[in-house]
Amino acid sequence: MTTRVAVLGATGYTGAELLRLLLQHPEVRVTEIVGQSKSGQRVSAVLPALAGLVSGEVASYDAARIAKNADVAFACLPHGASGKIVAELHAAGLPVLDLSADFRLRDPKVHAEWYGHDEAPALRAEAVYGLAELNREALRSARLVAVPGCYPTASSLPLVPLLEAGLLEDGPIVIDAKSGVSGAGRQPGERTHFAETTEGFRAYKTGGSHRHTPEIEQTLSGVAGREIRVSFVPHLVPMTRGILASSYVRPRAGLDAAKATELARARYEGSPSVHVLDAGSCPDTLWVRGSNRAHLSYTLDARTGWLHCQGAIDNLVKGASGQAVQCFNLMRGYSEGMGLLGAAMWP
Amino acid sequence: MTTRVAVLGATGYTGAELLRLLLQHPEVRVTEIVGQSKSGQRVSAVLPALAGLVSGEVASYDAARIAKNADVAFACLPHGASGKIVAELHAAGLPVLDLSADFRLRDPKVHAEWYGHDEAPALRAEAVYGLAELNREALRSARLVAVPGCYPTASSLPLVPLLEAGLLEDGPIVIDAKSGVSGAGRQPGERTHFAETTEGFRAYKTGGSHRHTPEIEQTLSGVAGREIRVSFVPHLVPMTRGILASSYVRPRAGLDAAKATELARARYEGSPSVHVLDAGSCPDTLWVRGSNRAHLSYTLDARTGWLHCQGAIDNLVKGASGQAVQCFNLMRGYSEGMGLLGAAMWP
Amino acid sequence: MTTRVAVLGATGYTGAELLRLLLQHPEVRVTEIVGQSKSGQRVSAVLPALAGLVSGEVASYDAARIAKNADVAFACLPHGASGKIVAELHAAGLPVLDLSADFRLRDPKVHAEWYGHDEAPALRAEAVYGLAELNREALRSARLVAVPGCYPTASSLPLVPLLEAGLLEDGPIVIDAKSGVSGAGRQPGERTHFAETTEGFRAYKTGGSHRHTPEIEQTLSGVAGREIRVSFVPHLVPMTRGILASSYVRPRAGLDAAKATELARARYEGSPSVHVLDAGSCPDTLWVRGSNRAHLSYTLDARTGWLHCQGAIDNLVKGASGQAVQCFNLMRGYSEGMGLLGAAMWP
Amino acid sequence: MTTRVAVLGATGYTGAELLRLLLQHPEVRVTEIVGQSKSGQRVSAVLPALAGLVSGEVASYDAARIAKNADVAFACLPHGASGKIVAELHAAGLPVLDLSADFRLRDPKVHAEWYGHDEAPALRAEAVYGLAELNREALRSARLVAVPGCYPTASSLPLVPLLEAGLLEDGPIVIDAKSGVSGAGRQPGERTHFAETTEGFRAYKTGGSHRHTPEIEQTLSGVAGREIRVSFVPHLVPMTRGILASSYVRPRAGLDAAKATELARARYEGSPSVHVLDAGSCPDTLWVRGSNRAHLSYTLDARTGWLHCQGAIDNLVKGASGQAVQCFNLMRGYSEGMGLLGAAMWP
Repeated sequence: MTTRVAVLGATGYTGAELLRLLLQHPEVRVTEIVGQSKSGQRVSAVLPALAGLVSGEVASYDAARIAKNADVAFACLPHGASGKIVAELHAAGLPVLDLSADFRLRDPKVHAEWYGHDEAPALRAEAVYGLAELNREALRSARLVAVPGCYPTASSLPLVPLLEAGLLEDGPIVIDAKSGVSGAGRQPGERTHFAETTEGFRAYKTGGSHRHTPEIEQTLSGVAGREIRVSFVPHLVPMTRGILASSYVRPRAGLDAAKATELARARYEGSPSVHVLDAGSCPDTLWVRGSNRAHLSYTLDARTGWLHCQGAIDNLVKGASGQAVQCFNLMRGYSEGMGLLGAAMWP
Repeated sequence: MTTRVAVLGATGYTGAELLRLLLQHPEVRVTEIVGQSKSGQRVSAVLPALAGLVSGEVASYDAARIAKNADVAFACLPHGASGKIVAELHAAGLPVLDLSADFRLRDPKVHAEWYGHDEAPALRAEAVYGLAELNREALRSARLVAVPGCYPTASSLPLVPLLEAGLLEDGPIVIDAKSGVSGAGRQPGERTHFAETTEGFRAYKTGGSHRHTPEIEQTLSGVAGREIRVSFVPHLVPMTRGILASSYVRPRAGLDAAKATELARARYEGSPSVHVLDAGSCPDTLWVRGSNRAHLSYTLDARTGWLHCQGAIDNLVKGASGQAVQCFNLMRGYSEGMGLLGAAMWP
Repeated sequence: MTTRVAVLGATGYTGAELLRLLLQHPEVRVTEIVGQSKSGQRVSAVLPALAGLVSGEVASYDAARIAKNADVAFACLPHGASGKIVAELHAAGLPVLDLSADFRLRDPKVHAEWYGHDEAPALRAEAVYGLAELNREALRSARLVAVPGCYPTASSLPLVPLLEAGLLEDGPIVIDAKSGVSGAGRQPGERTHFAETTEGFRAYKTGGSHRHTPEIEQTLSGVAGREIRVSFVPHLVPMTRGILASSYVRPRAGLDAAKATELARARYEGSPSVHVLDAGSCPDTLWVRGSNRAHLSYTLDARTGWLHCQGAIDNLVKGASGQAVQCFNLMRGYSEGMGLLGAAMWP
Repeated sequence: MTTRVAVLGATGYTGAELLRLLLQHPEVRVTEIVGQSKSGQRVSAVLPALAGLVSGEVASYDAARIAKNADVAFACLPHGASGKIVAELHAAGLPVLDLSADFRLRDPKVHAEWYGHDEAPALRAEAVYGLAELNREALRSARLVAVPGCYPTASSLPLVPLLEAGLLEDGPIVIDAKSGVSGAGRQPGERTHFAETTEGFRAYKTGGSHRHTPEIEQTLSGVAGREIRVSFVPHLVPMTRGILASSYVRPRAGLDAAKATELARARYEGSPSVHVLDAGSCPDTLWVRGSNRAHLSYTLDARTGWLHCQGAIDNLVKGASGQAVQCFNLMRGYSEGMGLLGAAMWP
């Protein structure tokens, strides 16, 4: 049974990637391509990769029309702007998958502290956090999904099995994460200007200031059953797609790389989007580019006792639009990996 | 009706790309993954992008076994080495799609002049040149397909409609073509070493020495009904995928960019893999990356009278493995675009 | 005898590159670093590559102050804006090297046709076109230098010896030129946004519309003694620096690659910034990156009769700031290559 | 007083970079360009960036000839191969700067453990470790300099002032380091093949297995006066040059980012190659590319107590050849920064 789908914010990178995935999904018909700033322009002019595949123009936003034409909406809108629109669509009866951060933090105080204003406080409690590997059952009946951030996905997946098993020492975790440039979006700026980005590498938003910090902490604290703090340090890699999140943790006695690998394989058995490499291996973001897959690995530095946990994803797929489709599949009763099992584009 | 497929030379770039496409094809089951130099290794170790999607090991070559296990074979082998193996598989009754150059040139003398030895002369006459937009009907009943080269595909598609219409002046055509680095294959070498490739741009095999020259001339002469000569100049772009072929031609009276665009649109109507941009537009290889699409455009420089014809493709897809699947679809009676209509991976 | 130098527009790419070169020049003292939009900010904040080398703040523009503090001014300002400021500095008695296009075209009608308004028509006749290899003597006494554009430099140098010798057939010349992204400047925009630039290749301003066209024609017509028309087609390469200009010309009888190479070597003997490769070689932009050198080469396609002429430069050095210093050296009586003979940064 | 210099292993990346620097050095004359595998070839054919700057051929190795023609030798040879040749040149009376790892580790047991065979044990005690900021005085009279590794330079410089001040807690330090691809050298291989390197990011030699680990520990332990252990994790960034080393340490009471910045500025006052950014800033490897400068910075994550120390260098300059010249300057009584004060090539 085909689902009619609306994509809001379709002309940014997560919107474009979502269209790419949905156009290949066997049970989806995209009926609304909405983008306020480019409305009225031909879709193929704004997204030339879709030339010959999608006709017509980018539509403007109209909650009533969208609710009539679609069964489900995906919102690929900026933080802050998203909440209000999501609330309108939700009120109009549409299940919504929100790719912004507006509903990710369950605690209103934490949300307020990191994001300021709260556009739709009434919906916060209803939103299901869309990390399918954690919340599979809740997602099946969700009507509002907060699709996780890219860094939190890559960072949390390797740590969840270890924290669930209670095998990490207390103390703040260091997460040194590296992302491709597409994570910064389609709006040109100095930080993403080609000549100042290629052939250079740098950190940004250091000192614990990146807004994905509380999201990671919420997930990890949830599975650990105690408060987890992370020192999260993002970096910009001169490439378009991909995140590698490297976490450095202190294992309890008995936890080594082989054990961690075994735990993760057991934890993610049946999860079509997670692949755990052999202990001591190193994932490459290129191996997951364009796919909805996460590659995880564990390595112990026996000389120093640090356990090094790596997670590699494509930030636009498993870190955003693919993950949204994965949640959508669960909501609609499709198989979790439907339309998402394509191999990475390598090389 | 599902087709059982064998891929030979599966661990190189065109082999890997072919596996990516075939694994998504609704009517294909890949039954043989063959690669002589890496036989016995786990597929996922050699092609980590397929981890979790393909199990088992790379098989060694055995014509009899392959003929038993597969209905069709794709050969992704080096020029020279391919011919003999293709002949064996063909003799064993298997239809074969050969991605090498061994059967592309119909005239044995021209083949000998450019490639030297001829491994399977008896089959040359039987091979159908796999530019589907040209040879659609012949492909439906082909048992041996010579899949075109990447440069010839990007170069020929824009010129075919103009030559068929008899609207170009005589005289040799300049083709200044630019390719991503994956066209050079997976074997490391100085020319493709990262530090000497990134941030640099250069031509190679100039002076009319590139072996794709006679292939382009064969196609263009065929549609023109007269001998066409091209001065073909390839360049290496510091990127992985994509070819932009720019041809400079002298139009006859009455041919301008609008007319050329109109001719091309008429010529390729119903061809799912060709998209003709508006006159004066410029295609970007990024818009077709990962897709089996060719973007064509025409621009007239009215001050000088040169007509500038551009063709952009992904060299590994429409320039190799995707084109092979397109031919395969025709051979098997599937719809021409089956498994090939995915959007480009952008950005 | 040290020269006190002012750099206007110091915070853009050509300004920054000029500072890099001037700070290493043994006879230069940079006394004014001027940049209107960033005035008041620390130089090291705007140009972090100069941290520890240059102290103080970016100054605002004040013709009188600059004329007092400097002996020579370099203007790295946008076309249109430059002319007026150059005229003021010139009126204040300062010799000026203008890196904009405002004084490059000698014929006011041609300038008006391609650039619109003319800010300082009175100075047009006085400006010396700063291609040192052509106008060495005139530059020694110049008080206003129009520093050539990047594409015209790379395009003209290989063709000049052939046209001076009268060895090319009549008829418009095709120039297919490829440039790194830094040529588009420091202002962020869609065309230079990392994620839409890397891993893609495309032409732009096709159809004879690029403003460097008349500049190339002026130079070539000047040395040929007849009107030369070029069909100039620029492309964007996913790299920061470098231009490769490929010209396709029809040689007269007797001109082959060896002869062209010999002519060019004779023509540029004693020119420290030009190196002519062996006939049939291919220059790589990486081999000249960061240097003020042009690498030229000639290849004949004997099958078709096209002579392929290549010129490779770093667009920010020999194509802009290095060329400006080269002219400055001649104006001040220094050796032409002073401060400019460093090797390319390879790899 | 000019010094005659020999460069051994001149055709690799550190050799080529050394030639670039030495050719600009006002007191150096390069008299020997030696490279065993390419001996007899024109220098300009092997290193086209030097075309027009260096004539003649690559020489073969002959200790006696080199000792006669040169006052000092730089050895840019592979680990293992270097020791024996360095010993021969040293025995012939030549002061030598060795860019390999053969003499970096003072303790023969540690050297044996990490590198295996010891080619020249007698010289180990004599070698001075060439981190000029640490061993300035010893270098002035050195006759054998072990030029530090790239990672150890970037990793150690930010930590030295904190450890000297005794302001870090005990416990192993995490160093997550990221390097451009040129660090892997000129020999093509799978790990540095363009198509598998660009657009991907990955760690390598994890688990405490990278040989720069004991070198970092030797330096840090030396300044701390106690044994320091590091968990060193290297990564490959899809760019040619640059290292960013990120260290995560636990500060003692009273040490915050401002204090760390103040300590580092005091420690490196008068060091021409070190620049300490404001507290909380993030260095970019692009800001030091092509220069002999290290950019350091300190940031405290107050929520978690981790102090984040960053060091950015160009691995081929301050991480290899520039650092060698810096040591050479001290050995010869030149000013430490002679020939090394050029700005980075930005962008």
